[in-house]
Amino acid sequence: MGRRADRRRVMRVRGSSVDMRADTLAVEEPLEIRVGGEAFTITMRTPGDDFALAAGHLVSEGTITGSADLRGIRHCDDGRPDATGNVVDVTLVEGITPPTAHRHTYMSSACGICGKDSLDAVRTRARWDVTEDDVLLSAELLAALPDRLRAGQAVFERTGGLHAAALFSADGELLHLAEDVGRHNAVDKVVGQAVLADRLPLRATILQVSGRASYELVQKAWLAGIPVLSAVSAPSTLAVDLASEAGMTLAGFVRGASMNVYAGGWRLIDARDG
Amino acid sequence: MGRRADRRRVMRVRGSSVDMRADTLAVEEPLEIRVGGEAFTITMRTPGDDFALAAGHLVSEGTITGSADLRGIRHCDDGRPDATGNVVDVTLVEGITPPTAHRHTYMSSACGICGKDSLDAVRTRARWDVTEDDVLLSAELLAALPDRLRAGQAVFERTGGLHAAALFSADGELLHLAEDVGRHNAVDKVVGQAVLADRLPLRATILQVSGRASYELVQKAWLAGIPVLSAVSAPSTLAVDLASEAGMTLAGFVRGASMNVYAGGWRLIDARDG
Repeated sequence: MGRRADRRRVMRVRGSSVDMRADTLAVEEPLEIRVGGEAFTITMRTPGDDFALAAGHLVSEGTITGSADLRGIRHCDDGRPDATGNVVDVTLVEGITPPTAHRHTYMSSACGICGKDSLDAVRTRARWDVTEDDVLLSAELLAALPDRLRAGQAVFERTGGLHAAALFSADGELLHLAEDVGRHNAVDKVVGQAVLADRLPLRATILQVSGRASYELVQKAWLAGIPVLSAVSAPSTLAVDLASEAGMTLAGFVRGASMNVYAGGWRLIDARDG
Repeated sequence: MGRRADRRRVMRVRGSSVDMRADTLAVEEPLEIRVGGEAFTITMRTPGDDFALAAGHLVSEGTITGSADLRGIRHCDDGRPDATGNVVDVTLVEGITPPTAHRHTYMSSACGICGKDSLDAVRTRARWDVTEDDVLLSAELLAALPDRLRAGQAVFERTGGLHAAALFSADGELLHLAEDVGRHNAVDKVVGQAVLADRLPLRATILQVSGRASYELVQKAWLAGIPVLSAVSAPSTLAVDLASEAGMTLAGFVRGASMNVYAGGWRLIDARDG
């Protein structure tokens, strides 16, 4: 495991004052994920939680649906004197098809690709019906989660430079939390922690993220069976469209006592319209 | 060209008050980039500036170094009744090697990959020596750029949901600006606008970005020949290491009259240490 934060020399300019000091930064290093010994992908990530990152990434790719699909995960240079910890190898159980090395094979390559086509493709891959998840929440509980996410960010406090994601139960219990320089990685790590704890599908849970809600984050939540995604910042159009199609609840701009709910507002017991 | 912002119905919760209204969101749609008719990559992006995005992305991949390497770019469904505008095809001039479909082929697949290896690989690919760029700036000029970037963000004002990047000359003239749901795309669009204006290498320029400075953003700046990268938020360790190796100036936490300079501080005429 590499360190998550490290120091670099920095020239601090404060108006006309200049000094040199050491500053603590979030570590970024490449992680190569192999599946069955074959190179699959490389992601720039903050070291730590690498097995969870690999497992969660394979859920997001639609390759696995839970821990039963995994035979094992290991750092492939374990025990070597020059070990970097930057390559993990995932072994799948027999019968599970390894992912292809191309990230976007679910997209049609036809001229005429559009948002609607890709929504249909994701729908085909998702094996959990989130629509059936009838968990109910209070807006008050949802509004409290961003502060609890921030409180759990150990590395952010030191570096100011990390995205975070956390999984909460419907009554607000913190189940998993992860930080990473990449927002997609933070979500993959949280989902992967849940995979390794044999918790998928993640029915009746809430995924809270520190930034915006993009199409890919909604997709990751859906593929893990998470019914509620809450973001501190704005969602995109396609994030809203996919959440609506999936039957997920999507909240954005969750700040203080206010929020915007873009899909699945029926799950908020104290904020239903009309 | 698709629209950059679109409306969706939203349930607004403000304490105990709930109402329904239309909200303006940043549009996110997939763009398939083909090279010579062959599928190369798909990126989720905000429509607009698609030719620039494709051109800039090919600079970031090390495929082209300027407009002289491009024969043409077109929307491949131009004129068709079902045109989505979501597929572009780039034609390279003879002798330019098309990129492979794998994004990270520059990384070693050896067990033992680390930050240092990947720095070496990028150094080999970058064809501009940024170290030679002896442009000098005032910290005061640099400090003013985040506000000027924000002022140019037409879509952000309406949606609160977009990253932005802008290229400035050494005396603070705004050369190019782009917004996108993806921060990498915003930089690729700015670099691509400069390619289409036949401006590469981008000597004596400053790239200002709205978020953090990651390894990939430093790499993109280097491959376009940009000597100065300035970020509103934190850099990662590897971003600092790559900027140092490249001889670039890297500033972070640029807010008001204060900033941290992590590499290349000698280019700041009014803030040199000692």
